[in-house]
Amino acid sequence: MKAPFELDARLAADSVPVADLALSTVRLMKDANYPWLLVVPKKAGAVELIDLDCDERAVLVEEIATVSEVLKAVTGCDKLNVAALGNVVAQLHVHVIARFATDAAWPGPVWNKVPALAYAEGALEALAARLADTLPGTAAVAR
Amino acid sequence: MKAPFELDARLAADSVPVADLALSTVRLMKDANYPWLLVVPKKAGAVELIDLDCDERAVLVEEIATVSEVLKAVTGCDKLNVAALGNVVAQLHVHVIARFATDAAWPGPVWNKVPALAYAEGALEALAARLADTLPGTAAVAR
Repeated sequence: MKAPFELDARLAADSVPVADLALSTVRLMKDANYPWLLVVPKKAGAVELIDLDCDERAVLVEEIATVSEVLKAVTGCDKLNVAALGNVVAQLHVHVIARFATDAAWPGPVWNKVPALAYAEGALEALAARLADTLPGTAAVAR
Repeated sequence: MKAPFELDARLAADSVPVADLALSTVRLMKDANYPWLLVVPKKAGAVELIDLDCDERAVLVEEIATVSEVLKAVTGCDKLNVAALGNVVAQLHVHVIARFATDAAWPGPVWNKVPALAYAEGALEALAARLADTLPGTAAVAR
């Protein structure tokens, strides 16, 4: 029997749900330093991009593109950063991060630069809902 | 008239050619700390993944997968890191990096961690040639 997909406990703790896409679940990181989404393919056991098959990769890259367009439209960011690293949390997850030339880590990558900054009360959920509303044809899970 | 693609001068200076794929040119970074490839779509003016159209993205993700398989096979790495950041060099380029639990930046990302380490004489070109030979059906440009 195929094991069901279960979101990694650390990814779950560090983020809130935004929406479910065909392949991936989308989460917003609890870090007000950067509008920062995770795109997590719901495939049990996947660690590397090459653990997805060709069809799944084609879906994933379009979901990354859709999420990127929405994040850019909602935030008006200067640059997008897209990355699948997974050195700490093995479960395959793609970071899609809105970067600003004024942000805490610019022009470096965001990881291990400054501690996560809490959103003001309600702001995390409000941004997650706004992103979910802007994602075309998704089942929003943020409300 | 459409401007021809020209590799960014900094990317060119920091790397050597490995192979040309249908969409992307593949380069090996001059940093012996990590076997580190760049996959650069040959589309003039592209900065973000979403500057490629849907068909181009589908090709790119398969080229990333092919390059990842080859890099993993040749290096026996513990983990692959795949990232399109572009905060410093705007031209769209995807890092595909072989990571080891013993490397200089593990488990952090590689950027801005330790200075680039020169390869021993001939080792950079030898690795580039080996990667090119392992890439299926490519026009090797490393020799």
